[in-house]
Amino acid sequence: MRKLINDPDAVVADALRGIAAAHPDTLRVDHAHRLILRGDAPRPGKVGLVSGGGSGHEPLHGGYVGAGMLDAACCGQVFTSPTPDQILAATVAVDAGAGVLHIVKNYTGDVLNFEMAAELAADAGVPVETALVADDVAVTDSLYTAGRRGVGGTVLVEKIAGAAAEQGRDLAGVAEVARRTAASCRSMGLAVTSCTVPAVGRPTFDLADGEFELGVGIHGEPGRERRPLAPARELAGMLVAPILADLDFTGAPVVALCNGMGGTPLLELYLMWGEIAAALAASGVTVARTLVGNHITSLEMAGCSLTLLRADDELLALYDAPVDTPALRWGPR
Amino acid sequence: MRKLINDPDAVVADALRGIAAAHPDTLRVDHAHRLILRGDAPRPGKVGLVSGGGSGHEPLHGGYVGAGMLDAACCGQVFTSPTPDQILAATVAVDAGAGVLHIVKNYTGDVLNFEMAAELAADAGVPVETALVADDVAVTDSLYTAGRRGVGGTVLVEKIAGAAAEQGRDLAGVAEVARRTAASCRSMGLAVTSCTVPAVGRPTFDLADGEFELGVGIHGEPGRERRPLAPARELAGMLVAPILADLDFTGAPVVALCNGMGGTPLLELYLMWGEIAAALAASGVTVARTLVGNHITSLEMAGCSLTLLRADDELLALYDAPVDTPALRWGPR
Repeated sequence: MRKLINDPDAVVADALRGIAAAHPDTLRVDHAHRLILRGDAPRPGKVGLVSGGGSGHEPLHGGYVGAGMLDAACCGQVFTSPTPDQILAATVAVDAGAGVLHIVKNYTGDVLNFEMAAELAADAGVPVETALVADDVAVTDSLYTAGRRGVGGTVLVEKIAGAAAEQGRDLAGVAEVARRTAASCRSMGLAVTSCTVPAVGRPTFDLADGEFELGVGIHGEPGRERRPLAPARELAGMLVAPILADLDFTGAPVVALCNGMGGTPLLELYLMWGEIAAALAASGVTVARTLVGNHITSLEMAGCSLTLLRADDELLALYDAPVDTPALRWGPR
Repeated sequence: MRKLINDPDAVVADALRGIAAAHPDTLRVDHAHRLILRGDAPRPGKVGLVSGGGSGHEPLHGGYVGAGMLDAACCGQVFTSPTPDQILAATVAVDAGAGVLHIVKNYTGDVLNFEMAAELAADAGVPVETALVADDVAVTDSLYTAGRRGVGGTVLVEKIAGAAAEQGRDLAGVAEVARRTAASCRSMGLAVTSCTVPAVGRPTFDLADGEFELGVGIHGEPGRERRPLAPARELAGMLVAPILADLDFTGAPVVALCNGMGGTPLLELYLMWGEIAAALAASGVTVARTLVGNHITSLEMAGCSLTLLRADDELLALYDAPVDTPALRWGPR
């Protein structure tokens, strides 16, 4: 392995010490429960937002904790769901009496554990709503999933629901915005290399030089098919076409996320975005906002994914609202 | 090669189309000269800031163009200096009568070409000052460099000088701040993989699994030595010790950049930062600000570098000032 770690089994715990050291002014870390929390949570009257999942997808989710986005992220081991007791601890910690929204990527382990935590929280007097993200059009019923996998749309749901919560909307209102955003996102990805889970020590899957996996999952789950690597402009078409076939993205402002899987140079990501933007324009899609970068990764996997959100003026305004997290930070423009 | 590109010789031109498409509201791209420009440059009365260098280090430099940072970035081919005519075109384009500061990483080709452009600009009536960044303590006189190489400190010089220019300081004042920042930065890096220049098609250097290059350059230049890969906490010590041996970082607020080389998962970068922060604390260094992420990369190289800036209240305030670029964006906190 070529990894900057101490002990393969202590990667998440060790990384949490780094997160605590890097963001002392805005975040706090509950090392016992492996939670990353907004430093000023709970905020009186504000709906709490909790997400989480397996680690290895950074900046998702811990990098999106802060003003205008999440109140807490539950960090599972690498590519492993967080446990119900972690999620419960996060839920109770951020509740300020207005209830808590769980934002959950559609993986069976995540769904079950968040459900259990929501029930336990309700028993403890904390009302919980859940928004499920299942935006990956690549496949239905994958290695760890019944239905579609939740991928890049999660970043947009966390941003937009976070802004709604920051505005002071109530739990039903924040949940409605989150679910509407999730329902309006579609994603598709591809990989040109695998990644290696530290505790496993060998690549998750084999991919020859000159091949790519179309529709890959963020844990290296198989996609639609394996093909010979093609020029970027053809790859762009292979990401765009299945997304546009699944939902009409014309006639509305679209938010686009051109996402790196962790090991792709930013130079290549921008190059891919140039090709994707051209393909979208040719299909009559109007891109109103663009985010290019590593936002939901698969360790050091090389590849990229495209997420489109069919937005409206309200969702766009929530997307634009100020945010202050390690990975997304901006003021009013 | 496992790259998301069209033609290995058109990578930069193709990526510039993506940058133009991603940031239409804040940037404009001069495709003929391969420049990324602030959309509202030249700004009347403001000193212009121009940097640039070989591509493949993104987000440096194009990702730092925008309000509060650079006015223009000159994009050379991958790992190749921009030409004097590119730099001249950028200098003339951003001059608003207050003169232009060139921020130059210390590589022989960059230095020569920026010098020639500065002379040509002066002939054309544009006064130019230059701030040279040579912060890498690893080696003196490397593959492409006389003296020390310029690396991560460049990000901090661009941020801090950019804020000074935004405040309306004159050319001498902005240059002084830039040079003072550059003189107060020290960096050290390491790599666990090589990278592949698209037009070359094979890895720049060979590095066996289980080895690392200590003091590697951002183009894969040799560092101090090759060693068996060690736990992160030992690697952290190997980055910290030569920096602290070169400059006293105690008794002042320090800005720290824990930088990924492009292919390192953010999880590992934060883990490294945890170890580095502990090593710095043990040495009596007070870290006032921390930036963890991929800021000056070497394509898909896996590895990291540490940059420390010995700051003062003025430099810290300039670092904290609002910025609006693709890669660094924040409002007042």
